[in-house]
Amino acid sequence: MIEDPGCQQLVGYKTVIDRADGSCLVALDLQPQHLNRHGILHGGIAATLLDVVCGNTASQFFDPENHAALVTVSLTLSYVAAGRSGEVRARARVTGGGASIAHVFGELVDADDRVLTTATGVFKRLRK
Amino acid sequence: MIEDPGCQQLVGYKTVIDRADGSCLVALDLQPQHLNRHGILHGGIAATLLDVVCGNTASQFFDPENHAALVTVSLTLSYVAAGRSGEVRARARVTGGGASIAHVFGELVDADDRVLTTATGVFKRLRK
Amino acid sequence: MIEDPGCQQLVGYKTVIDRADGSCLVALDLQPQHLNRHGILHGGIAATLLDVVCGNTASQFFDPENHAALVTVSLTLSYVAAGRSGEVRARARVTGGGASIAHVFGELVDADDRVLTTATGVFKRLRK
Amino acid sequence: MIEDPGCQQLVGYKTVIDRADGSCLVALDLQPQHLNRHGILHGGIAATLLDVVCGNTASQFFDPENHAALVTVSLTLSYVAAGRSGEVRARARVTGGGASIAHVFGELVDADDRVLTTATGVFKRLRK
Repeated sequence: MIEDPGCQQLVGYKTVIDRADGSCLVALDLQPQHLNRHGILHGGIAATLLDVVCGNTASQFFDPENHAALVTVSLTLSYVAAGRSGEVRARARVTGGGASIAHVFGELVDADDRVLTTATGVFKRLRK
Repeated sequence: MIEDPGCQQLVGYKTVIDRADGSCLVALDLQPQHLNRHGILHGGIAATLLDVVCGNTASQFFDPENHAALVTVSLTLSYVAAGRSGEVRARARVTGGGASIAHVFGELVDADDRVLTTATGVFKRLRK
Repeated sequence: MIEDPGCQQLVGYKTVIDRADGSCLVALDLQPQHLNRHGILHGGIAATLLDVVCGNTASQFFDPENHAALVTVSLTLSYVAAGRSGEVRARARVTGGGASIAHVFGELVDADDRVLTTATGVFKRLRK
Repeated sequence: MIEDPGCQQLVGYKTVIDRADGSCLVALDLQPQHLNRHGILHGGIAATLLDVVCGNTASQFFDPENHAALVTVSLTLSYVAAGRSGEVRARARVTGGGASIAHVFGELVDADDRVLTTATGVFKRLRK
């Protein structure tokens, strides 16, 4: 997901992959279009950020050199606190897996490092 | 979510609530900005549509008259097939719950009624 | 799981696979050892029954003739109502998948057909 | 769950709650009755251990003094590696929540501290 012209431009998040350690950071400056009618971060936007960061992390796990192509198999989101403003950031780590399946745990935090949403995802590598 | 000016306008989905039976339909005409770099419906957009339809369904379950305010507690998405073009539609049903918690099962289908993504969500009613 | 000598004997459930349509039924007559300290069906026992029924359903989906070997990749359980006594039964259906991955939705009901727990699971076929 | 006479005796796990910091440890010495027909830890037994450790952790979070009564609302299990023998141990931590809902993340590891299964659960406190 070095480039993801569709959804990334729509939502407006930034993706930074650290080539040294394979970690990925996804960041979004919250704007009114990211909020629901209660004025808090929309569950779907949080899901988008976590799908992206977990997917990139799985991709680096499968192939650090070439950023392996993959699909999301399943994703579970836990909405633990409400985000309202400022920059939110998502990070993830692989908890296990093998050649074709990766399990990833991700967290979305606000500017004060308070956890807003956690995610556990299963990703499947696409064969060439 | 009779109106959800932020995220709804960003993503471009339509929400229709049937006041007769309390059911909700969310529909989206897929455009390039809803796709990932593989040209398939982005997992985060599918998550957004299912969060909205499940949330609206839970809201009607809690209070059919006044569309109760609520938050998403958790949401699990199963990506069973890839969507590429045309209109996708999401529907949901309450599988159980009580005064404060609702369990909802939702499905997102394509124009041929093929299931793309399923969701199970937990929603919590907000006290006034 | 035509035979599953370990866990099946421990918990005491019965598994019936209908060879005609590939469907699976798992049944358990609730006894005190299946309950938690509140006198309701233990979440882990409900998870066991749903893992078994969803796994068998996936196995039949992969190979109706030979009951394919597989592993559970992930399982999400929604506890929608409390079970207390009598026979509980679990059934499942495949919602999608392919040659190596199956998505399954299962439901555990009580003797009055009231839904107690739902499950969505991802299963992966083992290569020979 | 200081005592859980039904399921705990059936499965045979031990629960230790550290009153000083509120943490909980669940341990089980794997025996044939905990395995499936492939000789690996049954998904339902892993689910049971994680439900117990996450539930106890949530209970301590709600009320460290009196071990609050609660129910499991939802539980998502990620099976990241296969357990075969020896003692497995589960620990958990609260990732967020409030007066009535707690989000918990748990991990089950083997004797070499290798992660076998992770869990994210939602627990609801029961009002007296």
